[in-house]
Formats: sequence, structure tokens, C-alpha cells
Amino acid sequence: MPMIANTPKPPYYAVIFTSIRTDHDNGYNKMADRMIELAKQQSGFLGIESARENTGITVSYWTNLASIHAWKANAEHQRAQRKGREEWYSNFRVRISKVEHEYGMQHHT
Amino acid sequence: MPMIANTPKPPYYAVIFTSIRTDHDNGYNKMADRMIELAKQQSGFLGIESARENTGITVSYWTNLASIHAWKANAEHQRAQRKGREEWYSNFRVRISKVEHEYGMQHHT
Repeated sequence: MPMIANTPKPPYYAVIFTSIRTDHDNGYNKMADRMIELAKQQSGFLGIESARENTGITVSYWTNLASIHAWKANAEHQRAQRKGREEWYSNFRVRISKVEHEYGMQHHT
Repeated sequence: MPMIANTPKPPYYAVIFTSIRTDHDNGYNKMADRMIELAKQQSGFLGIESARENTGITVSYWTNLASIHAWKANAEHQRAQRKGREEWYSNFRVRISKVEHEYGMQHHT
């Protein structure tokens, strides 16, 4: 995946998912990869960035709140969320935010 | 630092800083640690989360836009930003977003 998401001009939405893993693997990496592939197929998906180093941070970008809610309700994603709560994460937080301003290396906005 | 920031009930602001490093160290880690310490001393600072794995993602949380602007304008931080552009990062993006909703492991919000 590209390492910095090529998002459009704001406004758009960001879902900031911060997590601490348990020691249980039990299919975690395969499911994590599958969820990224599945997210990319959803309406309103704009991009994703992810890194883990003790704390894991995954930020996904979406056109609007409706697309975020639809993704959260996706049946396969729901199964992954349940496994996350029960097995893979000792703690996590999800923050839904509206991106109002963006700039980068090239000062292009 | 705590691994998941203990942020208050929304609304508040998140600065999502995504970066790709160059191969030049030249004081990077020391400066990164110093910037976290300095950020924590700023008015309006709520918390910070960080992970690097090829891509680096640092999310800092703030009470309002004014505190974010003041932090960006901090003289010591400005010097770090300049070094970042010139030496440490081959690419980066900063997204300023308003957190509207938050939930976690305990469904507490």
C-alpha cells in the first residue's frame, strides 16, 4: 500500500484507530490484511495509513460519515471487530474526526 | 508515554502527522523525544500517540485550533520543522481534524 494516503482537498473524514495487541495471534495478520483490502472496496474510502510499534495506529480516510457507518456495519468487518474485542486487542480507541486542513512537504494546499 | 491517549469527551482536535524518513539520523531521535516533551508543556495539549513502521504516524490531541497554531509557531518547534523538511523526512503530511466521536474497548462513550 502507498505509505502516505493521497487524500483529496479537505473536508473529508479520518478514523483514527489506536490499539494495543494481546499476545494471541490466531489469524490476526491475515485478518488485518483482509480488512485493508475490504476497506478499499467500500464506497467513500479515500485511503489508509498504518504503523505498529507497541502501539498500533491505523488511520483510514473517508468522504463522509455515512461511508464510515456503512463500513462499521459491514458483516465481515463486524466479525473482525468482534474478534478484535475478544482476542486481539487488550485496549483500543476509535476516534472519528473531520479533516479541516491539510498540508505537506510541498506546501501544496 | 501512555500508549493510548486519555483524551476527554469530544469535541477536541487531532493533528495527524504521517511521515517517511530519510536515511539521515543526525539527531532525529533526540529531537523527536524533545518535541514530545515540549508539546506536553503547551497550553491545550491533551495527549499524543506515535508509531513507526516504514511509515511513521504521530497523532497529537489538542483542545482547539488556537493551541495547535501556537504549537506550530513555537520557536523551538519551528527549528525542528525546518530540520524535518531539510533532512529527516523524504515526505510528510499534516492533517488537522476535529474529533467528533470517540469510543473504545469499554464502550464508555
